[in-house]
Amino acid sequence: MKQKPSFYRIVQKDIQSVEQLIIESIQMDRPDVNILLKQLFTSGGKRIRPNIALLLGKMLGAENRRIITLSSAIEMLHTATLVHDDLIDNSLFRRGNTTLNAIWTPAATVLAGDYLFAKAAEHAANTDSLVVMKLFSQTLSIIVRGEITQFLEKNNSLELQDYYDRIYAKTASLFQTTSISTGILAGTAPAEVEELKLFGHDIGMAFQIIDDVLDFTGEQQTLGKPIGSDLRNNILTLPSLLYFQDHKKEYKQFIKDTKSNGQGIRDVLIQNILAGSVIEKSIDQAKTFIHQGLNHLDAFPSSEFKTELKALTLDSLTRVQ
Amino acid sequence: MKQKPSFYRIVQKDIQSVEQLIIESIQMDRPDVNILLKQLFTSGGKRIRPNIALLLGKMLGAENRRIITLSSAIEMLHTATLVHDDLIDNSLFRRGNTTLNAIWTPAATVLAGDYLFAKAAEHAANTDSLVVMKLFSQTLSIIVRGEITQFLEKNNSLELQDYYDRIYAKTASLFQTTSISTGILAGTAPAEVEELKLFGHDIGMAFQIIDDVLDFTGEQQTLGKPIGSDLRNNILTLPSLLYFQDHKKEYKQFIKDTKSNGQGIRDVLIQNILAGSVIEKSIDQAKTFIHQGLNHLDAFPSSEFKTELKALTLDSLTRVQ
Repeated sequence: MKQKPSFYRIVQKDIQSVEQLIIESIQMDRPDVNILLKQLFTSGGKRIRPNIALLLGKMLGAENRRIITLSSAIEMLHTATLVHDDLIDNSLFRRGNTTLNAIWTPAATVLAGDYLFAKAAEHAANTDSLVVMKLFSQTLSIIVRGEITQFLEKNNSLELQDYYDRIYAKTASLFQTTSISTGILAGTAPAEVEELKLFGHDIGMAFQIIDDVLDFTGEQQTLGKPIGSDLRNNILTLPSLLYFQDHKKEYKQFIKDTKSNGQGIRDVLIQNILAGSVIEKSIDQAKTFIHQGLNHLDAFPSSEFKTELKALTLDSLTRVQ
Repeated sequence: MKQKPSFYRIVQKDIQSVEQLIIESIQMDRPDVNILLKQLFTSGGKRIRPNIALLLGKMLGAENRRIITLSSAIEMLHTATLVHDDLIDNSLFRRGNTTLNAIWTPAATVLAGDYLFAKAAEHAANTDSLVVMKLFSQTLSIIVRGEITQFLEKNNSLELQDYYDRIYAKTASLFQTTSISTGILAGTAPAEVEELKLFGHDIGMAFQIIDDVLDFTGEQQTLGKPIGSDLRNNILTLPSLLYFQDHKKEYKQFIKDTKSNGQGIRDVLIQNILAGSVIEKSIDQAKTFIHQGLNHLDAFPSSEFKTELKALTLDSLTRVQ
């Protein structure tokens, strides 16, 4: 068995506390519902956001109990958006497990997501910080506004900034809120909270780029969905966007296929994207964000926890290398 | 034209501020979406919760700006739950207007509701009160848990307490949070906040009973749905519950029809409920709650605003008389 990395071992007990807090808080009078809700939190998520919050919290000397509460809020908010997302995309599988949406009716899935939003907000309020609470509600707005835009707009712009705006709303905003909130709860000075904000932002951008690369390079079994699923759903991500910037003729064909709802040359396109240099270029961009993010930790003194936080962040790159 | 009652005229300008604050806060970069979202707040809602908060706030000497913010949060939360409710019940009309769900896809309706939840939470955080924020998130949990229970359970218990539990979760909990929060923001002493809590609870219970009576006695055109729609959807409310308590044979037939998904004798049942004394008994119960609620205002000195708040509360009874 592969040994867990040391950055994981340091927070393992706290992560268990986060999971326990979440499971306890969502209990209802219905054992059947409890089983389904519990599955949402025991189906092998990486808990990357709680991991970051907990290591950052230790690095900053925050009160552990409050960071556990914050982590519960963040992880539940993340899960709630996934539940509604699965309904919106009609996904039947996530991480290889069937989604709630595949078992329950849309109505029940809406309610389950709403319930997790409500409970997430309760945990956020339990951090006893108005600033955290405000950030939390603003981040929910940003995420949902991003989803509405993604749902309504054609997601086929070749502008890099449009892609960055999308992944900020979808992912980096919550990473950013995780790092700022940890700083606030630790009583970190404003100038340093600003560094934490940029750290969270950059790491979040990198994580989403890595996920978008994995959508092309991953195994179908691990992904729980077909390779190139974003492209198949007409959504451009960094690899396809970079590819099309150099292949305008194929881009025109792609747009034409999109309009006629045809899958057209998608399989060929995915092969071309995998064969060329855009995957490597995308990974380089993720690396740039990670190193840029880690530079913002220079503002803080060296410590075991800082070292492990760096290790955790760099470890994310191994998923695509 | 019928003149607006004086309790309305006192808060009319503030209600406009609440509506303006809501509309401004939900603006997106998409004019088409803005029009649809705006419709949700301009389709003739009674703004009963903001009305109560604003009159209570004036009675207690609260800072008006904060009560306007609170009212926006409460009204948006209420509207968000209606948006998702319409999806869950597949309603196509509400207050005679088509619902978002009838125009948009389920996915878009989920997102619109989530967006309003997020914005409601932002307004709640903007009251700058941790207590209000906590109450707000707890109330959202209570409402959603109530919806989950209503969705999963047979709603045909003849126990009065089961009905009261349901309408507490659905309606009275938010009225209660409205009155407590107004007290908190006004700096009211804890013992008096307790009176405000009971006032909000009782008034909320009364309002839901009145709505449930109107479901039988209202005009189909005003209701925007068929008369007796709750009973047709197998949900017992106070009138049908009281009727069945005295007509066990018809209750057995109703349960049988429910199981076979038949509408069976529903039309006859509705006529019988309207012809008997249970409508009057239900109205009496609403009156009892209203007077019980108003008694809790005895804890506060007489004032113009208290008089108008009483008038507003009693006015709700005129809807069924």
